[in-house]
Amino acid sequence: MRALRLTAWKTEPELVEVDEPTPGPGQVVVKIGGAGACHSDLHLMHDFEPGAVPWNPPFTLGHENAGWVHALGAGVTGLEIGQPVAVYGPWGCGTCARCRVGVDTYCENPAGAPVPGGGGGLGLDGGMAEYELVPAARHVVPLPEGLDPVLAAPLTDAGLTPYHAIRRSWSKLPPGSTAVVIGVGGLGHVGVQILKATTAARVIAVDNRDDALRLAEECGADLTLRSGERTAEEIRAATGGRGADVVLDFVGVDATLRTGAAAARTVGDLTIVGIGGGTLPVSFFSVPYEVSIQTTYWGSRPELIEVLDLGARGLVRPKTTTFRLDDAMTAYRMMQEGTLEGRAVIVP
Amino acid sequence: MRALRLTAWKTEPELVEVDEPTPGPGQVVVKIGGAGACHSDLHLMHDFEPGAVPWNPPFTLGHENAGWVHALGAGVTGLEIGQPVAVYGPWGCGTCARCRVGVDTYCENPAGAPVPGGGGGLGLDGGMAEYELVPAARHVVPLPEGLDPVLAAPLTDAGLTPYHAIRRSWSKLPPGSTAVVIGVGGLGHVGVQILKATTAARVIAVDNRDDALRLAEECGADLTLRSGERTAEEIRAATGGRGADVVLDFVGVDATLRTGAAAARTVGDLTIVGIGGGTLPVSFFSVPYEVSIQTTYWGSRPELIEVLDLGARGLVRPKTTTFRLDDAMTAYRMMQEGTLEGRAVIVP
Amino acid sequence: MRALRLTAWKTEPELVEVDEPTPGPGQVVVKIGGAGACHSDLHLMHDFEPGAVPWNPPFTLGHENAGWVHALGAGVTGLEIGQPVAVYGPWGCGTCARCRVGVDTYCENPAGAPVPGGGGGLGLDGGMAEYELVPAARHVVPLPEGLDPVLAAPLTDAGLTPYHAIRRSWSKLPPGSTAVVIGVGGLGHVGVQILKATTAARVIAVDNRDDALRLAEECGADLTLRSGERTAEEIRAATGGRGADVVLDFVGVDATLRTGAAAARTVGDLTIVGIGGGTLPVSFFSVPYEVSIQTTYWGSRPELIEVLDLGARGLVRPKTTTFRLDDAMTAYRMMQEGTLEGRAVIVP
Amino acid sequence: MRALRLTAWKTEPELVEVDEPTPGPGQVVVKIGGAGACHSDLHLMHDFEPGAVPWNPPFTLGHENAGWVHALGAGVTGLEIGQPVAVYGPWGCGTCARCRVGVDTYCENPAGAPVPGGGGGLGLDGGMAEYELVPAARHVVPLPEGLDPVLAAPLTDAGLTPYHAIRRSWSKLPPGSTAVVIGVGGLGHVGVQILKATTAARVIAVDNRDDALRLAEECGADLTLRSGERTAEEIRAATGGRGADVVLDFVGVDATLRTGAAAARTVGDLTIVGIGGGTLPVSFFSVPYEVSIQTTYWGSRPELIEVLDLGARGLVRPKTTTFRLDDAMTAYRMMQEGTLEGRAVIVP
Repeated sequence: MRALRLTAWKTEPELVEVDEPTPGPGQVVVKIGGAGACHSDLHLMHDFEPGAVPWNPPFTLGHENAGWVHALGAGVTGLEIGQPVAVYGPWGCGTCARCRVGVDTYCENPAGAPVPGGGGGLGLDGGMAEYELVPAARHVVPLPEGLDPVLAAPLTDAGLTPYHAIRRSWSKLPPGSTAVVIGVGGLGHVGVQILKATTAARVIAVDNRDDALRLAEECGADLTLRSGERTAEEIRAATGGRGADVVLDFVGVDATLRTGAAAARTVGDLTIVGIGGGTLPVSFFSVPYEVSIQTTYWGSRPELIEVLDLGARGLVRPKTTTFRLDDAMTAYRMMQEGTLEGRAVIVP
Repeated sequence: MRALRLTAWKTEPELVEVDEPTPGPGQVVVKIGGAGACHSDLHLMHDFEPGAVPWNPPFTLGHENAGWVHALGAGVTGLEIGQPVAVYGPWGCGTCARCRVGVDTYCENPAGAPVPGGGGGLGLDGGMAEYELVPAARHVVPLPEGLDPVLAAPLTDAGLTPYHAIRRSWSKLPPGSTAVVIGVGGLGHVGVQILKATTAARVIAVDNRDDALRLAEECGADLTLRSGERTAEEIRAATGGRGADVVLDFVGVDATLRTGAAAARTVGDLTIVGIGGGTLPVSFFSVPYEVSIQTTYWGSRPELIEVLDLGARGLVRPKTTTFRLDDAMTAYRMMQEGTLEGRAVIVP
Repeated sequence: MRALRLTAWKTEPELVEVDEPTPGPGQVVVKIGGAGACHSDLHLMHDFEPGAVPWNPPFTLGHENAGWVHALGAGVTGLEIGQPVAVYGPWGCGTCARCRVGVDTYCENPAGAPVPGGGGGLGLDGGMAEYELVPAARHVVPLPEGLDPVLAAPLTDAGLTPYHAIRRSWSKLPPGSTAVVIGVGGLGHVGVQILKATTAARVIAVDNRDDALRLAEECGADLTLRSGERTAEEIRAATGGRGADVVLDFVGVDATLRTGAAAARTVGDLTIVGIGGGTLPVSFFSVPYEVSIQTTYWGSRPELIEVLDLGARGLVRPKTTTFRLDDAMTAYRMMQEGTLEGRAVIVP
Repeated sequence: MRALRLTAWKTEPELVEVDEPTPGPGQVVVKIGGAGACHSDLHLMHDFEPGAVPWNPPFTLGHENAGWVHALGAGVTGLEIGQPVAVYGPWGCGTCARCRVGVDTYCENPAGAPVPGGGGGLGLDGGMAEYELVPAARHVVPLPEGLDPVLAAPLTDAGLTPYHAIRRSWSKLPPGSTAVVIGVGGLGHVGVQILKATTAARVIAVDNRDDALRLAEECGADLTLRSGERTAEEIRAATGGRGADVVLDFVGVDATLRTGAAAARTVGDLTIVGIGGGTLPVSFFSVPYEVSIQTTYWGSRPELIEVLDLGARGLVRPKTTTFRLDDAMTAYRMMQEGTLEGRAVIVP
């Protein structure tokens, strides 16, 4: 079969012929229906060096995958050949306290995982190929009725990541509260949709691009603000002075973190999702009382099942453009140039 | 001023002239903009007898009230004359553990309340008059911008009661879950609206009247079912066999309770809101494992503030018909005959 | 190897020779260090009939098991031969929403489980033998340092069952609250220990046997009450009239359920753990407002890990008497006669 | 009556004669039984300047107060003359969303409070006098039976502050988890007691003074560590590599914050209680995934009631030394020199 493989750090991936995988005991092979192309793939191609992560090329790219069950290893139950499925992307050890409840993202025994802190497309062969070998059946999640693998694929990351960040803050988002989304890109616009679908909070979207703010409005944002020096002040003005109960920073640079901290309400949440490299200096009086500041990374398997339900019912719908496997590099190029509308999904 | 007063048990209320109230220390007089007429008022007129509750007529009816601050007693802060407000209806002792956090409904020191287990329109003078004396300033809640007292009045009970019942079950209503509303009347149709506004759960509405099911659809129900012997089975079929994560019974007769218990999913909620007089025999194997069965009564003050926000933003909108104070008895008569569309609000 | 097997309903089990099990892909064989004898085993011997449950004899008894990993099937990772482990008893399908987070007790796809609604010692071969075949590695839970399999075995049921019932009510048990334990037997006395170890609630223990009340005191109960007509009244008196925030009924007959309902505080929990066959008629005014009534059944895998931690640190310590496999029937006879002190653990 | 008053910033307080207060409508006068002396009083005397806070001297010191109801203003219900009570210290507006549920610490309408962000002993007359005027009856909390005002006084701050910080993290402290207390001083040693009384978490105490570590052991700490460069490493070693589920930093300097961040477990809490002036630079990879970092300030009124229950039952017992009002300055001097054992309580 053909696969888009990264063969060395700091090189472009290549479309090459490889053997079709066969499943060992407890494993599953998925025929890929859609594989999302993610900004982090660009980092893998251009920025990583030996030693940055505990795994190395070569491996097939693609960590946002959905398709159909193709082959089952010995001992696998509960799945049927041909069944449409999504692949949960973070692959942990399977036995630590986190993995046992489906939170492989925070696996506490990385030495026991297939590769430490990785998964398909991240150190192991991913979904930019005709088939993907999934090393443990628990990562294979049936699709709800009516959800196409092409739509499901980006939900496994671009959907799941904002979903996890929002879901953990639900208790702070009752009617009368306000959520702020900073950065209305691939993850942020889905974040706005998720907030509207799952809470009655007012949603304020912040970005420095007009088309991003228009997209936020289409997704249901109650108010959009062009980012600038006075953004935090404008958020306070729009919330009767109280500030935002939850700020989701999908950018994560110094300026957005500073805005988030200044705009948050006491006992609120400031959640850093975007890996923009910024730093926020936190001291007793630099942030309103009891605002919780944390990063979030991807999401859990039970949360993926919930996101897929939102997708199947049309409540969350990432913008996507499909490409053939042959055109995968075109997709990445457009992504880098900023000319891509929505998420690129590779359809082998 | 004129007031619609119940002067004795088992009589019709009378529209009479009474003195305007003046506020003592810590008290507030509210000029009434709207006073909702509730089915329980009919019970007060027709079914109550001496000894049934620890208070007696005469008192002015009306326990769903909103209007404007008219006069402030000594020591009251944080309110201004003319400010539009709603009146939180259940008036507890103000000092027990429940009252301290705004849950006067479950006051644990009823002997310390103005009347035990009552409030304005329930043992004390209510809002079917030009002015209402509110015995403690904490019961007076400012209206959010854009919410008219006529709309706010029914939200204080017909909105707050389903809201409380639903809010306590939020953690059981993530995407992929199902809520069942049994009885789409004055409270039930608001319940459907609240579920749709605050969760991404699928909503199934059950009633034995076609127009109630139509109303449920208008309010956003995903599926409507005519109640009958097979309702629980139909709910299981519609939920992949799992059953309903939350059942809200706004009727509360034997048959609806039986349906609710049979339709609930393990670890779900069966909440009895309707005072229909039914009984559910509960034993270890009569209900799915760990389904929680409970009544709920009205709601808390912080919850009222949240409901008012939903009302101000148009996310919850009870159907209402307005009547002048002179026509209040017409409203009650139509309510009894079942010819009233939505909630009657008396506008003095 | 030798095994204590039930060969037909309504017969005594027999100690017979059977083949040692060998693990298939994903399976584990555990060398048994301790197997708890449970009252429900007596029901299996004496009360069950064909059709009562969806499985039948023959099978080896023993559903409370701990020991050491003896053999690993293909594809099993994260376990080592010789490692001390407990066996999580309820064996579900492994892929439904409940099983995915370790709540096999409420498996929603029983047709996909090894036997529907059962496990080792409950339709499948259990731990009253030298070795037990565990059909999925996820059921095998490493013991924390310092916890002997003989002590761990009863924790998997007699510990886990009250733990689950208590843990779900933690939010109702802050300082100032009261928990009532009705029935201080094999599960109840562990319940008292768990309440004292994990909360600052006052604990009231109720039983009709003096030695049970003495045991409750040893376990840390703050107050003990002999059960009778006035028990609920006495509980109210001991709680300033408020009632018990949480009632755990480990008996479950009509009288104890009635006491529990009468003794509960508004918004409290009445949890039915004991399968005593009683029925509580629930109507709007028969139970204090918003008291949640539910059954609980056994517990989840993450909860088992927590119970084992409590055991390893000496915070929970069920009373046990050990018996050789040859004397297992003696243990059951003493259990039936009521002459057994604490839980019987069979040590093969 | 006599009162210890701060008459100007950067001066020593003076013991002077002032008029006894009389309560206006809704107010209460408390006869002081005990008034705790707090480190922050030293800051008031020595470090504050005009403009630092929105209030100024003169005022009577003492913000940790308990005693007996002495006089009730018009309209006050639920309290009786002579009743033993504690005074809840943070005095907010009483009508914002925070104050309505007893969280005056985070009052969102400081302009509506008696003084913005202050209370008795903090801009208004406090408890280092024979009587204290409490400007709203809700701040007066009855003492549970058996709790002496001298013990209750320090619980209102030195008890309430760690209690609030710990209570908000309960869900992260099940059996098997670890809590770290950095700084075993006046608040930290009470923190250890509260953790032991209300959770089954392992408690690790960190300090650089031997006697503080001894005190931590007396209070029940499972492990004590002398603080240093390797503290975070030692905490990881003691927790099987996972790190601490909750870190409570009662010091709050750069080094302790750095230790806390390095020692925390993914999805844990790092809570800054101590106002040591330190700063923690937070970026995506500088802290384990999803560790929540937040300050906490004092606590809520419902929490105070819970702390008082722990005190009455002997589960929490701050070390105290009592002084007469005449000797109050001696207490402050010893506090400054570090020669004071436990909390100083002034008994007028």
